[in-house]
Amino acid sequence: LETTPSIDFYFFIGSTYTYLSVLRAEDAARDAGVMLKWRPFFLRDILAEMDNSPFVGKPAKRSYMWRDLEHRAALHGLRFEGAPPYPVDPQGVANRVAHVAATHGWCAEYVRAVYRGGFLEKNPPGDPGFMRTVPETLGRDPASVLEAADSDGVRSGLARRTDEARRLGVFGSPSFVCGSEVFWGDDRLEEALAWATGRHPARS
Amino acid sequence: LETTPSIDFYFFIGSTYTYLSVLRAEDAARDAGVMLKWRPFFLRDILAEMDNSPFVGKPAKRSYMWRDLEHRAALHGLRFEGAPPYPVDPQGVANRVAHVAATHGWCAEYVRAVYRGGFLEKNPPGDPGFMRTVPETLGRDPASVLEAADSDGVRSGLARRTDEARRLGVFGSPSFVCGSEVFWGDDRLEEALAWATGRHPARS
Repeated sequence: LETTPSIDFYFFIGSTYTYLSVLRAEDAARDAGVMLKWRPFFLRDILAEMDNSPFVGKPAKRSYMWRDLEHRAALHGLRFEGAPPYPVDPQGVANRVAHVAATHGWCAEYVRAVYRGGFLEKNPPGDPGFMRTVPETLGRDPASVLEAADSDGVRSGLARRTDEARRLGVFGSPSFVCGSEVFWGDDRLEEALAWATGRHPARS
Repeated sequence: LETTPSIDFYFFIGSTYTYLSVLRAEDAARDAGVMLKWRPFFLRDILAEMDNSPFVGKPAKRSYMWRDLEHRAALHGLRFEGAPPYPVDPQGVANRVAHVAATHGWCAEYVRAVYRGGFLEKNPPGDPGFMRTVPETLGRDPASVLEAADSDGVRSGLARRTDEARRLGVFGSPSFVCGSEVFWGDDRLEEALAWATGRHPARS
């Protein structure tokens, strides 16, 4: 009886480097024979607890981040059209819709559409119009999706996922979790897949 | 007339990930046909200006950092013996000695000895005894090295290097600079070498 290895892909819409993972993690996981589980969580709460503002008040670090994203996108053959709207999703709507989508099996396609819209068409995740358009293009009824996203059940469901991430030691997005092992950053995706399939040299 | 491509390796003793680059950057650069120039600078001043404390008050991020270092060391076949003393070099002595060593052509061997001593034998860089031992083992007179490191000329020389780093947009260690292009982090070393040799896909 063999079981397919899996990794939990914890992500937060609003993280910039998450763009790369959203577009490439599923293919990379499939090629490695690993099942990818999409786990939206609300990173902003964890960042606030750590008093961690990765880019606020750090102009050199912020402009480097956009340039580095451009480098990394080129390395992976992904489009990059300059800095997208940032920061985004002030009310958390885009992330709560991700939780709704994860519950109903359309998380991957939703998050890809949100990131493509944000990075390539400069639509800010969280913007009311954009938040109606995305479910619609995926064949979902925007009104009921947004009503669900505003419900107490979804708010507390996303908070539980955030608690789960915190307990695992997750403090950034994207994070790839295999058992108790955390890999932070799109540039650690290959390591996470190597870990999940027993090929990482640090895995005893 | 061909010129050898070069990269400037900006580093700060006290940065944890810099351990990896100190041990592997010179070999990697040589293999790529790139000249590596060792550029000590005083990152702590730049971090303070950005109000950036990468790990203070961030226990999950800090414990991840040690684990990630262990992963990365294993991937590169480098020793890792658990967390070394941290933070280190409160007075900046170890970094000022690096400036002295860079001026006199023994920077690479000095910084390797400091990092090996710190990570493998748990000697804190900046510790007075350790700061005498390292130059001694490299055949330098500790008293005159430490006297030079305490001089106004060396203090202002290191400050000029720090200004230079700031102007280039450097905000962390290790950073690899090719012309106006900055690559931050040991995990960007291969990209920096690819850039320097015209093989990076984002280089127009």
